Amino acid sequence: MRLCRFSYEDMVLTGFYDDNVVIPIDQAAEAYSRETGVELLLPSTEELLDLLPPDGCSFEQARDLSAWLDGLDVIARDELTVPADEVQLLVPVAEPPKMLFLAGNYAKHVVERGGTTAEREETFPYVFMKPPSTTLTHPGEPILIPRVSPDQIDWECELGVVIGRHCRGVSEADALQYVAGYTVVNDISDRAYKPNPGRKPRERDKFFDWLHGKWHDTFCPMGPCILSADAVKNPQDLPIKLTVNGQVKQEATTAEMVFPVAAVVSFISRWVTLEPGDIIATGTPSGVGSATGTFLKPGDLIRATIAPIGTLESPVEAEDS
Amino acid sequence: MRLCRFSYEDMVLTGFYDDNVVIPIDQAAEAYSRETGVELLLPSTEELLDLLPPDGCSFEQARDLSAWLDGLDVIARDELTVPADEVQLLVPVAEPPKMLFLAGNYAKHVVERGGTTAEREETFPYVFMKPPSTTLTHPGEPILIPRVSPDQIDWECELGVVIGRHCRGVSEADALQYVAGYTVVNDISDRAYKPNPGRKPRERDKFFDWLHGKWHDTFCPMGPCILSADAVKNPQDLPIKLTVNGQVKQEATTAEMVFPVAAVVSFISRWVTLEPGDIIATGTPSGVGSATGTFLKPGDLIRATIAPIGTLESPVEAEDS
Repeated sequence: MRLCRFSYEDMVLTGFYDDNVVIPIDQAAEAYSRETGVELLLPSTEELLDLLPPDGCSFEQARDLSAWLDGLDVIARDELTVPADEVQLLVPVAEPPKMLFLAGNYAKHVVERGGTTAEREETFPYVFMKPPSTTLTHPGEPILIPRVSPDQIDWECELGVVIGRHCRGVSEADALQYVAGYTVVNDISDRAYKPNPGRKPRERDKFFDWLHGKWHDTFCPMGPCILSADAVKNPQDLPIKLTVNGQVKQEATTAEMVFPVAAVVSFISRWVTLEPGDIIATGTPSGVGSATGTFLKPGDLIRATIAPIGTLESPVEAEDS
Repeated sequence: MRLCRFSYEDMVLTGFYDDNVVIPIDQAAEAYSRETGVELLLPSTEELLDLLPPDGCSFEQARDLSAWLDGLDVIARDELTVPADEVQLLVPVAEPPKMLFLAGNYAKHVVERGGTTAEREETFPYVFMKPPSTTLTHPGEPILIPRVSPDQIDWECELGVVIGRHCRGVSEADALQYVAGYTVVNDISDRAYKPNPGRKPRERDKFFDWLHGKWHDTFCPMGPCILSADAVKNPQDLPIKLTVNGQVKQEATTAEMVFPVAAVVSFISRWVTLEPGDIIATGTPSGVGSATGTFLKPGDLIRATIAPIGTLESPVEAEDS
């Protein structure tokens, strides 16, 4: 089951997402009641977590409704759909309490960035944050090349894990029970930002700074939907791909992660309580722009795809345009 | 004008804060109308930003009410007060969109942590974040020594700046116009956290990691109130002091900051949009525990004081107690 948030005629609505079309949940529930004579208790909500495992109050109803829709013939189903390009898709979680990002979770990407990868037992996932309210960017909305540092803006397609239940100190074996679903995150990164170019060089400057260069406004496109966790047998078997202007830049599978999703959730929960709506972006595979000195520029179009979830499309614009 | 949020009999209320007492704003407004015959249009709110400059819809009414209270005789005023220890004070901003922290903004602290300080022109403020929802801790509520890393938990008393208006690319000269007020922040820090003690040593390990060790649950006590910006002629003239079990550990003035408040707001706004409710903790002076190898332990009581704002009191407990 894939669920999305979208705005339509000034309302924020939830829907089933099917690549080119969206089925508003309210409408689908009405049609279900009309056809089956069974009233579906599905309260109106703007929050997808209400419709998702493990704790969504309407998860079972949403799943039943989704199954019913899948069984409809094409004509009956078409009557309920709205073309995706007639609505504005929104980030699937409006206000994540935390957005946590992994640095270097795909061995080949660590190497292309000039590092060396240790075995899993010898290292740990390196986690950083972005400020949600100023970096989150809706599907189709532009990434803005910052005026203060326009030259080395890079893409990073990542599997985003949506937390569905409070968790603290959870084992790797149990960790996936706390996941509501999965989405696509583009961890836009400024490889060059120097807040003060005149500063004295420091020894630590040779290491990448996961703070300032990750925080520019609009630097976290997310969407187009959430694929519910119950539909994902194995999160380590998802193809991940990013194109810029149609040219393939990243192409890999989540099988290549050094730390699989369950390990990452377990790891972070050792010292930070994870909460419903938290997003964990699980690192990017090789193929980022900095490996070849190719960076984003106004006019570019990025398509970040994780096949069973969908494609997150982001045009690139100059900050001032 | 000092304003606080507090809970009382399951309600969240706002009040004027006066060290040992709180005056609920609703009650004060009623008394004002009764005494003066003038109806005060002061809508009930749980958000202090509504009562603060520069954009609070009820800022002027709150200021008038505060001035009227100051003019009351002791007996009349006493009728309106509630002892502060009969209410639960709350963090003054319930859900800050962002909490940004400065590392190394007092020269003596940089030196005590083993660094060297450059001149202002040659360096820049180093900024990191904490996750608000899991680190924010109410006045009087305990800081929990984490089970996973109990040995080097340290204090850092800091002036907290509460942003009151969206700002982006603001000059240092204009920056203070975007500030709603000031509070006290205790940037609790784990100097030793190693997520995986068995990992291979890396060259960068010798530099402090501003990520993991700052994020433990409860590691951001904040309060007890907000001192409104209009009452602060010069934020670089505030005495700052922290005691542990009555023993003075930090004692300085905000005059010692390398980057004053206006410079910090201006600096961050160059690449991150600041929003109402954002908190910027402006760095800590010398006197932290790591300088002498003295760390927090269960049973300790921390009092972090910035005199015109007030004292933020935090007991220390073990995570499991």
